Amino acid sequence: MLKLYHAEPAANSLKAMIYLYEKELPFESRYVDLHKFEQHEPWFVALNPEGQVPVLDDDGAIVNHTTVIGEYLEDRFPDAPRLRPNTPLGNARVRYWNKFVDEHVMNYVSMWGWHRMVGVIARGIEGGEFDKLMERIPLKDQQEKWKTARSGFSEKDLAHATRKIEDAVDKVDAHLAKNKWIAGEEYSLADGNFYSMCGMMIARMFPEIGSEKRCPRLLEWVARMNERPGVKKALAMPNRTNPALRTFTGEAR
Amino acid sequence: MLKLYHAEPAANSLKAMIYLYEKELPFESRYVDLHKFEQHEPWFVALNPEGQVPVLDDDGAIVNHTTVIGEYLEDRFPDAPRLRPNTPLGNARVRYWNKFVDEHVMNYVSMWGWHRMVGVIARGIEGGEFDKLMERIPLKDQQEKWKTARSGFSEKDLAHATRKIEDAVDKVDAHLAKNKWIAGEEYSLADGNFYSMCGMMIARMFPEIGSEKRCPRLLEWVARMNERPGVKKALAMPNRTNPALRTFTGEAR
Repeated sequence: MLKLYHAEPAANSLKAMIYLYEKELPFESRYVDLHKFEQHEPWFVALNPEGQVPVLDDDGAIVNHTTVIGEYLEDRFPDAPRLRPNTPLGNARVRYWNKFVDEHVMNYVSMWGWHRMVGVIARGIEGGEFDKLMERIPLKDQQEKWKTARSGFSEKDLAHATRKIEDAVDKVDAHLAKNKWIAGEEYSLADGNFYSMCGMMIARMFPEIGSEKRCPRLLEWVARMNERPGVKKALAMPNRTNPALRTFTGEAR
Repeated sequence: MLKLYHAEPAANSLKAMIYLYEKELPFESRYVDLHKFEQHEPWFVALNPEGQVPVLDDDGAIVNHTTVIGEYLEDRFPDAPRLRPNTPLGNARVRYWNKFVDEHVMNYVSMWGWHRMVGVIARGIEGGEFDKLMERIPLKDQQEKWKTARSGFSEKDLAHATRKIEDAVDKVDAHLAKNKWIAGEEYSLADGNFYSMCGMMIARMFPEIGSEKRCPRLLEWVARMNERPGVKKALAMPNRTNPALRTFTGEAR
């Protein structure tokens, strides 16, 4: 039996749920409450020493990092609806785009999400309690991100993140002029990746970038993604975040 | 026929050559002279719009990014000696470590290599000529890296890179206490990756980090890697870099 430890349907948690629903694989959902920092609890860190969601548990086999989870599901369930062409060149294209999203998109959209949401949360925690929370975070990078969110990301870093998002949107929009899906003619893991990390929230989160004028093909692709039954099911998963703080889905700014 | 466009046997070019030699796949070597900025020439950018080596040409199918090239060779030549376990969980482990090297190691070792080598080269180019060279670089990030190398990386960024390398070395050393190879019991793509991006040069490039005292298991693994016939063949490829500027292999500091 598959079990997914996940948070709200946005970013990495959404991505893993899209993969599972698109492949029509039944799974047990185990909600991890990030508002209560459950991902840093000893029981969760025992499962994933990095203290991050989502995590897939396949009958005791533990897989983390959503790009790796996506490929794992392809290898593990070859008879389920496929999200990878399984030709050498087709797979290379999926992996090229996954690397692009993982290395040049995700962290920059995330910085703005953290700036708008986690900064507010972090500044609301009293100093001594904040230090205790920090001590429990296993990844040093993640500790630093929390501390920076609390003190505020620099204007320079935020401007750089904006430029990276602009470049990514322009690249994907130009690419979609000649390709139906992100990795070519076939719907794939790369679509779920770019959608969860950027596409699903771009128009709400960055209206000046995700505009009809700047990226019409990208927005047309988002509309097609929104209609997919697997995507709909993933988006319908519970969202317990305070609506005023839903910056990762762009519902709040 | 496979053709590899590559530079010196270090970092990404070394990694692709290790994969080809380990898999015993004959290939045509096409040296791209980075000293002459051949990777930004129109003929090369037509091949790889990102203007970066290495590139694999498999009878007209073009694949770039070495982690993607590695998986491509596994998919394309399933009967050659394998560098991926081809079990769902085994592959997930290889991909976890490849992501770790690609996202948390490579750029930080590279920053020091650029600081020590490309900075010297970039400052030796006259202003007008430098601007013309920059205009030819397709990737904006790469342009910025050149400009930063010329003006000098900040102490803060270099210190952060050093901390990332220290963390990576400690993580891999602890992991190798319980695993023969990077991704577990089987030699894989992940070994060629960590070796090319960090392991092969760590002791020479950062003697205070890559020391017998700090990372004995890592150095023992490097010694085993050095003895592999495929690795030896890759390392024996021509190196035209001025010996005084061989900072990427740690031969010069």
